[in-house]
Amino acid sequence: MGEFLKVLTYQQARDLLNQNFSWAATELLPIEKCGDRLLAQDIISPENIPAFIRSSVDGYAVDCEDTFGSSESLPGMLEHAGEILMGSGSDLTIGSGQCAWIPTGGMLPSGSNAVIMVEYTEKLDDKTILTFRPVGPWENVMQTGEDIATGELVFTRGKRLRPQDIGLLASLGIHEVEVSKQNRVGVISTGNEVIPIQQKPDLGQVRDVNSYAISAAIQSCGAIADVYPIVPDSPAALKDTMARGLTENDLLLVSGGSSVGIADYTLDAMLSFPDSDLLFHGIAMKPGKPTLAVRVGQQLIIGLPGHPVSALMVFHIVCASLLSSFRRQTVQGRLLQNIASQAGRDDFIPVRLIPNEHELTVQPLLGKSGLMNILAQADGFIHIEYEKQGLYNSEMVTVTLF
Amino acid sequence: MGEFLKVLTYQQARDLLNQNFSWAATELLPIEKCGDRLLAQDIISPENIPAFIRSSVDGYAVDCEDTFGSSESLPGMLEHAGEILMGSGSDLTIGSGQCAWIPTGGMLPSGSNAVIMVEYTEKLDDKTILTFRPVGPWENVMQTGEDIATGELVFTRGKRLRPQDIGLLASLGIHEVEVSKQNRVGVISTGNEVIPIQQKPDLGQVRDVNSYAISAAIQSCGAIADVYPIVPDSPAALKDTMARGLTENDLLLVSGGSSVGIADYTLDAMLSFPDSDLLFHGIAMKPGKPTLAVRVGQQLIIGLPGHPVSALMVFHIVCASLLSSFRRQTVQGRLLQNIASQAGRDDFIPVRLIPNEHELTVQPLLGKSGLMNILAQADGFIHIEYEKQGLYNSEMVTVTLF
Repeated sequence: MGEFLKVLTYQQARDLLNQNFSWAATELLPIEKCGDRLLAQDIISPENIPAFIRSSVDGYAVDCEDTFGSSESLPGMLEHAGEILMGSGSDLTIGSGQCAWIPTGGMLPSGSNAVIMVEYTEKLDDKTILTFRPVGPWENVMQTGEDIATGELVFTRGKRLRPQDIGLLASLGIHEVEVSKQNRVGVISTGNEVIPIQQKPDLGQVRDVNSYAISAAIQSCGAIADVYPIVPDSPAALKDTMARGLTENDLLLVSGGSSVGIADYTLDAMLSFPDSDLLFHGIAMKPGKPTLAVRVGQQLIIGLPGHPVSALMVFHIVCASLLSSFRRQTVQGRLLQNIASQAGRDDFIPVRLIPNEHELTVQPLLGKSGLMNILAQADGFIHIEYEKQGLYNSEMVTVTLF
Repeated sequence: MGEFLKVLTYQQARDLLNQNFSWAATELLPIEKCGDRLLAQDIISPENIPAFIRSSVDGYAVDCEDTFGSSESLPGMLEHAGEILMGSGSDLTIGSGQCAWIPTGGMLPSGSNAVIMVEYTEKLDDKTILTFRPVGPWENVMQTGEDIATGELVFTRGKRLRPQDIGLLASLGIHEVEVSKQNRVGVISTGNEVIPIQQKPDLGQVRDVNSYAISAAIQSCGAIADVYPIVPDSPAALKDTMARGLTENDLLLVSGGSSVGIADYTLDAMLSFPDSDLLFHGIAMKPGKPTLAVRVGQQLIIGLPGHPVSALMVFHIVCASLLSSFRRQTVQGRLLQNIASQAGRDDFIPVRLIPNEHELTVQPLLGKSGLMNILAQADGFIHIEYEKQGLYNSEMVTVTLF
């Protein structure tokens, strides 16, 4: 394999990863633990909502024919036969010329087929209600099953559950559902120069930023990050850690070791697992060029760049969609300077948003700042597409927010 | 108090809640647990980044004067004195007319003050490097502290920590920080008609949707939801549960019991706690009118409407900002129908987004659907402002996404 680089666009890389990554196993969970989880089953309504004919206003339950002809100038007159209470059925029956007080959500008493809103009535005395307009059949009521009918498809597999969706499951009496398990992602930092963050770097050493930044990004996708101790530049140690990582996780992210020189044995180590296959070696994007991916059975090992800014950007742009269907917010703004780019490569550039009086302006962060400071200052990033040679000052651009 | 309703706009209500709610206590946490947490301290850099003068490219470390005058047609010639390795200091010294191979991130050897990119050089033999252009002093290097200097203010208190921010802390060797504790929010559903969701409702009963939907919404704000058993319409039982809830939480959300009739004793129970004070009773918004709030010491009790759609909308619009600085994404779209509203009230209307060929269109969900189905179908909501009497078909509107 060695020299032959399999370079893809970032979309091709992302698609290939998605095609080769299978959803995590599923688990049955009580709905109170399912916020933001992905449904792993279709949800069919087990019952009618509402379960009974229900008033959608505060007013009087009536036989609508008894209100026909009533108006402001010539009100109708009905006998007040009683009250419907919330939270209990009623054995009240409305006879001809009668009505009953009913609150919003109350069950219509038998004999009634509509509700006249309290605003169009007046209580003449305890026994007598005046009606100032007519109501039609089933006006101001919800029919049984009108909201959701028994057997109706409520949600389909793959839906991300929001608070209101969990509320709807609760209202249907569905108290547990099958959801995708949270993915477990192993995080491995490699390199002789990488040291634990608690240590003071000697000259030439760098702290292990990737384990922390990539783990936080994994968690923000709703997955579980499993961080391994730093691996020195040793083929045997790398292979051992990756073997453990594959046993314990659905996906491995290995940062460092994908640039020339060290790249060879990193790739060799990945390809030494049974049923393994190089998906790509290099992405035509900046940052992120030295990214590579190997399929091992049903699992993936993705080799991220060692440079922390590159690693995190590649995670956001190429890897995050494996773990989460969440799409980042975008805003439009006006670019504050020219940016040159190379055609034949997708560029992603961190930017800061500066609101001015009339519009949002977009300041690219192009400094040579090597570490995380440039991303820590950034509100988001812009994308210069593959075929473009740059963007112009004052152009409107789309910013994807971090 | 009883009859006198203290009605505010939703912004006034939100501001008043924010003014009367104190941040949760703080805690010292390892940075790997701080994703999405709010910093409770300023962060001052304890060291320089980079800690040493570092190359920002792959190339040769040189004394820049030795490259002056070199060009494509008349290359300079330098003696190759050695190699700088990543991850270790070097005792190499560059003498006049010498150079040393240096990778990106490598420490400049003494005697050098610039790096010439490998692209502008050629290796003539093991001992000799040709240079095809000059470099200036400190070209292609990062100075000590250029990224972040010792004593520099990196982050201020209140900042929400994103993956790159955690990465930056890691690169500074800061492995634990003081963050705000997650707020604990007690959730109490009240009403004789409310039953646990596992039970089949009798006529007139409804399942306890709010405990589930509101808890999920609390969790999506990064706070902890603490759900209490359903409280029947009993002043004593309500007061007992609220007393327990105040002991165990920072904030209480009580749903139901805020409409006329039951409202009186609910409010009385809230105001019976020592050092309590009515903040508002009613918000000029739809849905959400019967919302109320009481301050008890440093804590808040918010009475949400019993209606699940209203309760969740009030949570999103009025309560969420207490718990999270996260702002929901908005998109623009073209309204598909007229919507009438009342001036003197803010209306919030669930909508579905329908992309068509040219633009996003916005379908209001105005049905009488009483339960969560209308929000489960919604992609977001639109806002009809206080002074407006409605929105017109084909108007461009801002949709806040769920």
